[in-house]
Amino acid sequence: MLSPRIGIIIGSASDIAIVEKGIPVLVELQIPYEVAIASAHRTPLDTSNYAKKAKSRGIEVIIAVAGLSAALPGVIAALTTLPVIGVPVKGGALDGLDALLSIAQMPPGVPVVSVGLNGAKNACLMAARILAINDDKLTAKLQQWAVNEADKVNLSRLKLGNMPAAPEESYK
Amino acid sequence: MLSPRIGIIIGSASDIAIVEKGIPVLVELQIPYEVAIASAHRTPLDTSNYAKKAKSRGIEVIIAVAGLSAALPGVIAALTTLPVIGVPVKGGALDGLDALLSIAQMPPGVPVVSVGLNGAKNACLMAARILAINDDKLTAKLQQWAVNEADKVNLSRLKLGNMPAAPEESYK
Amino acid sequence: MLSPRIGIIIGSASDIAIVEKGIPVLVELQIPYEVAIASAHRTPLDTSNYAKKAKSRGIEVIIAVAGLSAALPGVIAALTTLPVIGVPVKGGALDGLDALLSIAQMPPGVPVVSVGLNGAKNACLMAARILAINDDKLTAKLQQWAVNEADKVNLSRLKLGNMPAAPEESYK
Amino acid sequence: MLSPRIGIIIGSASDIAIVEKGIPVLVELQIPYEVAIASAHRTPLDTSNYAKKAKSRGIEVIIAVAGLSAALPGVIAALTTLPVIGVPVKGGALDGLDALLSIAQMPPGVPVVSVGLNGAKNACLMAARILAINDDKLTAKLQQWAVNEADKVNLSRLKLGNMPAAPEESYK
Amino acid sequence: MLSPRIGIIIGSASDIAIVEKGIPVLVELQIPYEVAIASAHRTPLDTSNYAKKAKSRGIEVIIAVAGLSAALPGVIAALTTLPVIGVPVKGGALDGLDALLSIAQMPPGVPVVSVGLNGAKNACLMAARILAINDDKLTAKLQQWAVNEADKVNLSRLKLGNMPAAPEESYK
Amino acid sequence: MLSPRIGIIIGSASDIAIVEKGIPVLVELQIPYEVAIASAHRTPLDTSNYAKKAKSRGIEVIIAVAGLSAALPGVIAALTTLPVIGVPVKGGALDGLDALLSIAQMPPGVPVVSVGLNGAKNACLMAARILAINDDKLTAKLQQWAVNEADKVNLSRLKLGNMPAAPEESYK
Amino acid sequence: MLSPRIGIIIGSASDIAIVEKGIPVLVELQIPYEVAIASAHRTPLDTSNYAKKAKSRGIEVIIAVAGLSAALPGVIAALTTLPVIGVPVKGGALDGLDALLSIAQMPPGVPVVSVGLNGAKNACLMAARILAINDDKLTAKLQQWAVNEADKVNLSRLKLGNMPAAPEESYK
Amino acid sequence: MLSPRIGIIIGSASDIAIVEKGIPVLVELQIPYEVAIASAHRTPLDTSNYAKKAKSRGIEVIIAVAGLSAALPGVIAALTTLPVIGVPVKGGALDGLDALLSIAQMPPGVPVVSVGLNGAKNACLMAARILAINDDKLTAKLQQWAVNEADKVNLSRLKLGNMPAAPEESYK
Repeated sequence: MLSPRIGIIIGSASDIAIVEKGIPVLVELQIPYEVAIASAHRTPLDTSNYAKKAKSRGIEVIIAVAGLSAALPGVIAALTTLPVIGVPVKGGALDGLDALLSIAQMPPGVPVVSVGLNGAKNACLMAARILAINDDKLTAKLQQWAVNEADKVNLSRLKLGNMPAAPEESYK
Repeated sequence: MLSPRIGIIIGSASDIAIVEKGIPVLVELQIPYEVAIASAHRTPLDTSNYAKKAKSRGIEVIIAVAGLSAALPGVIAALTTLPVIGVPVKGGALDGLDALLSIAQMPPGVPVVSVGLNGAKNACLMAARILAINDDKLTAKLQQWAVNEADKVNLSRLKLGNMPAAPEESYK
Repeated sequence: MLSPRIGIIIGSASDIAIVEKGIPVLVELQIPYEVAIASAHRTPLDTSNYAKKAKSRGIEVIIAVAGLSAALPGVIAALTTLPVIGVPVKGGALDGLDALLSIAQMPPGVPVVSVGLNGAKNACLMAARILAINDDKLTAKLQQWAVNEADKVNLSRLKLGNMPAAPEESYK
Repeated sequence: MLSPRIGIIIGSASDIAIVEKGIPVLVELQIPYEVAIASAHRTPLDTSNYAKKAKSRGIEVIIAVAGLSAALPGVIAALTTLPVIGVPVKGGALDGLDALLSIAQMPPGVPVVSVGLNGAKNACLMAARILAINDDKLTAKLQQWAVNEADKVNLSRLKLGNMPAAPEESYK
Repeated sequence: MLSPRIGIIIGSASDIAIVEKGIPVLVELQIPYEVAIASAHRTPLDTSNYAKKAKSRGIEVIIAVAGLSAALPGVIAALTTLPVIGVPVKGGALDGLDALLSIAQMPPGVPVVSVGLNGAKNACLMAARILAINDDKLTAKLQQWAVNEADKVNLSRLKLGNMPAAPEESYK
Repeated sequence: MLSPRIGIIIGSASDIAIVEKGIPVLVELQIPYEVAIASAHRTPLDTSNYAKKAKSRGIEVIIAVAGLSAALPGVIAALTTLPVIGVPVKGGALDGLDALLSIAQMPPGVPVVSVGLNGAKNACLMAARILAINDDKLTAKLQQWAVNEADKVNLSRLKLGNMPAAPEESYK
Repeated sequence: MLSPRIGIIIGSASDIAIVEKGIPVLVELQIPYEVAIASAHRTPLDTSNYAKKAKSRGIEVIIAVAGLSAALPGVIAALTTLPVIGVPVKGGALDGLDALLSIAQMPPGVPVVSVGLNGAKNACLMAARILAINDDKLTAKLQQWAVNEADKVNLSRLKLGNMPAAPEESYK
Repeated sequence: MLSPRIGIIIGSASDIAIVEKGIPVLVELQIPYEVAIASAHRTPLDTSNYAKKAKSRGIEVIIAVAGLSAALPGVIAALTTLPVIGVPVKGGALDGLDALLSIAQMPPGVPVVSVGLNGAKNACLMAARILAINDDKLTAKLQQWAVNEADKVNLSRLKLGNMPAAPEESYK
């Protein structure tokens, strides 16, 4: 079994549903990963240890999923030099806007980046893009991924049968 | 010199201006305090240590001032049983609303309470109310404080001279 | 039967469901409490009387639950020196953001603190932290509470069976 | 001197600047009024007394100006049957949106109405409309008021000289 | 049958459900009313005519219910001197906040007041308060209304049986 | 079969439900149209080609439906001189407010206009108004459309039977 | 002098500053226009008349500038079949977001489109695009406009002298 | 001169001020970079070309700065497999919140990540973290960076001289 290159951290087991939107991306792209549970507020020591040891354990990118006050990505970023991608969880007072802002609005000097709400799929794709910088095979897979995405859009045109024919030929 | 009973933590020196709105309250009520700087993201170890040692050092209430993603109060609350009052700092994308939500919207199980934006004065008064629960002298001072506040309102009625006379007698 | 130390006030019976999220905390920590109904707008005199008599009746912390314009915590705080913790109820135009702001954004001089939306559990924990300042037994219970919270997080790792093994050992 | 028919309440002297936008309306319409200072949180007893005695003192409409958590209009409405118009003061976290919501979002059963932010002028006009229901002379003055407002708009067309001529005749 | 004193205008039949929350108030207080449908955008001429003729038809207060861009209350207020109370309908992009702001944020000189979202009940009560200014019988009914509201709160205390006894006697 | 004059673009097949609210308008007004699928992010080349060729293919107005970051209308507007009407799709963090702002807040120099959320019906009507500028028959149809809309409002008055009779005659 | 093809309506003379951002576009593209002042709330009859007569006077597109509750564009759209472009004015409680929503969130059946805040420039460009549909000369001018915009961007690259050389050649 | 590894794209020269907050980071860390101007809406072809050629030119991470509708980062991400970090520019209707949402809320399948508003400094640090994954020297520099940040916090404690001494020793 391959050592994980991407570490996905969630604060509680209830966030697994979010993570499961992203894992098929990693499986398809054949990137080994791990899913860990560590809460910034309930298991702060575990969280610190995870952050400190991640690089030496072979992790290259950390994805941290968090809702509400969403301190997890920032707390991890403070204790590692690895890139940390936050995934704000939809819910709460502002439907997750609070989480998105908590993740993105870090003080200058300690960077965290955020994808959209519940955006685990894009977080995994971003992690793959990062790993692909020096990996031509993975780059080729990502290029194929984009082709597949376009194919899905093209395929969906066929479903417009009950509409006036879409001018498929004209704009290809 | 008395040992501090209230610990005020700020993440950077630039938040001193906020703190200075609250300190006269503590001075007037003769409650010993300390001001410390510890950043959740830049000096995470210091922050942890402060939180862990606060109670044994005699601190009874912690006031944590934070803006933007505002992780500081929650990070401290995770490592102490002392009550933690967060002061969200106005500024940023939502004029501090993000900070207020980051502070208040903690996950169930790890409590932080928030005053209003830049509300260091009310945070210090709340800390005083907490200390006054078992302290009749401090309670008396807080009662006098309320009388003084009312007196200020009453006094301001005299300044309405260029308006039709306010019916001061009628509603006292 | 023990005299209540914490007074929980709700404006209408419909808010009982919110309160019930917090009461198990008080039961577990063996803190005597009472639940009272008093509306700032429908029974203003009752509300005033409750606030004025709370301290002499032995109440040490007041928790006030309120939605929408949420005047209850502030109206009570104006008539007592006890610490008042507001619990904004989710709902209405801004999903409770209006209530949270009404509670936290008090004028300087009359403090109220707010937990998150529907945050009765954290309000009760905060009340317990306040009572624990001078109570070593209660402090020990709160420390055990935190250990239990961490244990729940740890336990949830076992449920990740259909994922690549979480690196449990590595970050403890 | 005439007994006041409209009572304008502000929570602190700093809100006088807001009130001064509305008073010329009352002067022009020759409606006697009074301006009083009473804070829901700092002088709660005064506020209660004002509300309870207003009707017997001859007040017919109450205008309450309030910012931030803006409890004043609701607290007054709870203790009188007179119509209460709230004027939310711009400022704070949401530029006064919190005040507007605190004023308008009253629980069903205790009504308060809100004008726009800093809208003392419209609050005074609304009070005048209420008094005019049974007062033909005041109605005539309000009709003239509307004519004057239209005249101001018409007059401003003359200032468009550096633009292509506005088609003034065509749409009158 | 009595001539209506309150005119309730809705822009489309779908808003009847909102209106039905307020009508029992008028029935209980025995205030004659009418419900009319007139859209600011779909039947602008009807809307103008309603506004212009309302006063001469005996209407004393207009309640206008509107969602989304919510122009109805302002369009009516522009063509009458009667007081116009807007009821913003919850829904749309900001859950009705857009409607509330459209109603309240009128330009200075043309007043509209707003109750809370879907607040037809409070709009009817406000209309009753306006009519009660010079009507002692109606004032007495409104005072009784407030007593009834308080009684409902008091009654609800009995339902707290599964909680520690609420200190009902202590704060009455 | 007539060549389409209006091109409706959606980014994915899931937005067909939105489009279907507008198409009956075009059918009723007998305006030929096409529905095409082209994603700004998944098929950027197709999108460019569609925009570049639209005018020469006979399209006169483009309607672009987009949610979330909603780049589609702007990307199209950058590559054509045809008028582009954006339809923001409700959903996501701010219930579609993000889409509305992405569509409307274009940099000066590249115009896009926005209808309301999910407003495909109004987008189609706006496209019809544009085509009607030089088309008296279509103008007549739009005038009839407005009459029909008013008739629907009038008809709905009959459904108010369980209310006091609406004063239908009085305001017509 | 040419008869105006575009009618720009503002509710008060203070909005001229907004309009002046758009007029150079019309001057450069040689499209005759007029600027009129008519308030939905202060001169409702004028506004109605303007809307009703615009088409017969030769106007082809109406641009309506409005802030706060921003009823003007909708009120006009209700009385004409011409396309109406709203320009929300920045300011007020939500920095103009209320105006933007009031303009865009029209009920289905009466369309108004909105540009961004203070977006008079884009409104004029959109009006030009509408007029260009059947006007090859104007289309050519708009194509040249786009070239000029691109040239400005290209020119600005030269100002990056104190930065590492921008890779101008590489991406052209 | 070294070939640039990081490409910073701005839509107009006015965003240079934002970029200048991040460039010192790259200079200090000795990472070669380039600054390019390409607008998604004004020079769409240039933007496409930049995105398509970036990887083959040696760029490893793209930073795209954009305000308002902020299409630039997404448009670039659609045409490359490189990681794209968006920097939302503060300003406009929601003080940049619209830009932040436009950047982060990408459709699943095309990832963009966002830093906070005007967060060019953190964007550059994130780019450095990405490059450091396989670069021990750069990792060491980033570790030293974190130490320097902590030192600045520690240094700022000395400036608290007019406050009660901060307990510097106690929490280290």
